[in-house]
Amino acid sequence: MSVLIAGSIALDNLRTPFGSRNYVLGGSAVHASLAASFFSPVEIVGVVGEDFPKEHLDFLNSKGINTNGIKVLKGKTFHWEGFYEYDMNMAHTLRTDLNVLASFDPVLLPEQKKTPYIFLANLDPDIQMKILAQLENKSLVVADTMNYWLENKKPSLLKLISMVDILVINDMEARELTQEPNLIKAAQIILGYGCKYVIIKKGEHGALLFSNKFAFSAPSHPQTELVDPTGAGDSFAGALIGYLSAVKDINFESLKKAVIIGSVIASFCVEDFSIERTKNLTKKEILMRYSSMRENVAFGDIESNLIKEGGF
Amino acid sequence: MSVLIAGSIALDNLRTPFGSRNYVLGGSAVHASLAASFFSPVEIVGVVGEDFPKEHLDFLNSKGINTNGIKVLKGKTFHWEGFYEYDMNMAHTLRTDLNVLASFDPVLLPEQKKTPYIFLANLDPDIQMKILAQLENKSLVVADTMNYWLENKKPSLLKLISMVDILVINDMEARELTQEPNLIKAAQIILGYGCKYVIIKKGEHGALLFSNKFAFSAPSHPQTELVDPTGAGDSFAGALIGYLSAVKDINFESLKKAVIIGSVIASFCVEDFSIERTKNLTKKEILMRYSSMRENVAFGDIESNLIKEGGF
Repeated sequence: MSVLIAGSIALDNLRTPFGSRNYVLGGSAVHASLAASFFSPVEIVGVVGEDFPKEHLDFLNSKGINTNGIKVLKGKTFHWEGFYEYDMNMAHTLRTDLNVLASFDPVLLPEQKKTPYIFLANLDPDIQMKILAQLENKSLVVADTMNYWLENKKPSLLKLISMVDILVINDMEARELTQEPNLIKAAQIILGYGCKYVIIKKGEHGALLFSNKFAFSAPSHPQTELVDPTGAGDSFAGALIGYLSAVKDINFESLKKAVIIGSVIASFCVEDFSIERTKNLTKKEILMRYSSMRENVAFGDIESNLIKEGGF
Repeated sequence: MSVLIAGSIALDNLRTPFGSRNYVLGGSAVHASLAASFFSPVEIVGVVGEDFPKEHLDFLNSKGINTNGIKVLKGKTFHWEGFYEYDMNMAHTLRTDLNVLASFDPVLLPEQKKTPYIFLANLDPDIQMKILAQLENKSLVVADTMNYWLENKKPSLLKLISMVDILVINDMEARELTQEPNLIKAAQIILGYGCKYVIIKKGEHGALLFSNKFAFSAPSHPQTELVDPTGAGDSFAGALIGYLSAVKDINFESLKKAVIIGSVIASFCVEDFSIERTKNLTKKEILMRYSSMRENVAFGDIESNLIKEGGF
């Protein structure tokens, strides 16, 4: 089943303690699409300027990502400049040039309207809903957001949340959105807004998956190679929707695996700048890291005879 | 097998967003001993003043905690006053009255010197080593510390680490001690100091266990009842050493279970002030929470046929 992914397509300037890169391929839709492409054909929806290198489009196509939904507009491609300190959980923005993204008005192609699996990467929630309104055959909709929208477009964001199946959000945003510091309670509040599932991304601390009935605590890969966190969250969500579109059956078991496979692909994404690591990722590497994550969290049942009632 | 636990015995003034308590039973040795008492008889080593209520000693004895190793000195019992904001990962100290703890010079009783399982709770590392030197039959030594000692007694702390089997330390302290922000790398540096295992406590994000050969990522209990975090770390370590003394066999499997059982007991500790929740904890409650933590992290193997080599 194919996946539709809408979001930003960017040329990024990145600086981390491990180096810097200028005008490299980035953007939420790019990272998410590349991650999803390991599991499913992808329809990418976005906008670029006339400066966008054709080689990037060729590369995306080579990965099974249909770029017919990328509109080329007069002007420059969206450009983000940011840096990270040693605490790489926090991106510091130096400059955001929206450029052509400012006039992004997504109109889906006829064949895209039938796509059943959807990831709405971080965008203005009104634009996200505009895409949703064009979809005719939705099986599963996943949406991401960021603090900017919950501070500036909260009513639209709350409406969007009520219309999607899965909201992915990071821990700080979940706390800010709900004004509740306890993440478990924050998740319950978000579920109350009307989505079926919420996934709270905690960076190096893994992720939490909640529905009204169950909770799952996912570890992170014990990461020693951390070069550039840009795109980690989008890789996570892209792999998640890609996997779910391949497995089709949406239930607690498949959702848990989807969260782990999302973490696996994200953990590769951060090992190099831009898409440098992910573009060459092999099936064997994915399988090995998935297995090692299972091993890293497995533990046995407790011997109940060793516990004494009321103390020794 | 009995467990020896040395640390502070305190009368605490605590304030959290959920209330406050004055002159309640606390201290690292108390929380750790109570946690260990579910698995093993405990020898507690510490010092109190003449103001220490006899009912507290009676209570500890009723739990199988031998209080013969508690010295009563002229003066007042160690007193800590602290508060927590909504982010309860961070304790704010208002006042520390060392009182009799300032002259704590632990001399083990003859029968205590033979204890095989030891937890050295947070104390001056020179005092921790002084206790170590008196032990004649050590099977396993676990030590805790805090940022004060790594800032003020780093050479002693490093020497201590080289002499213990397991160091338990929180994430901020691990980063500060090693000057390495990546926790996985920080753990490797700490193992290089000479301990066999290191456990990094991450509060609401669980814990990490490392040896030179393996790594284990432990979840936390999805906590909605969080009233007072005081004593969580000590409950964790106390339950860990208590469990290991009961199971006796120290290997990767038993260490993983010990970390989880530590998290389980700690998760109860924080549900009320002081020892109010832990003192009435039942075997059934412990077993149920352990099982739910296993369920919260379990996930299946990935279907390898769903992953495409090099993208779709």
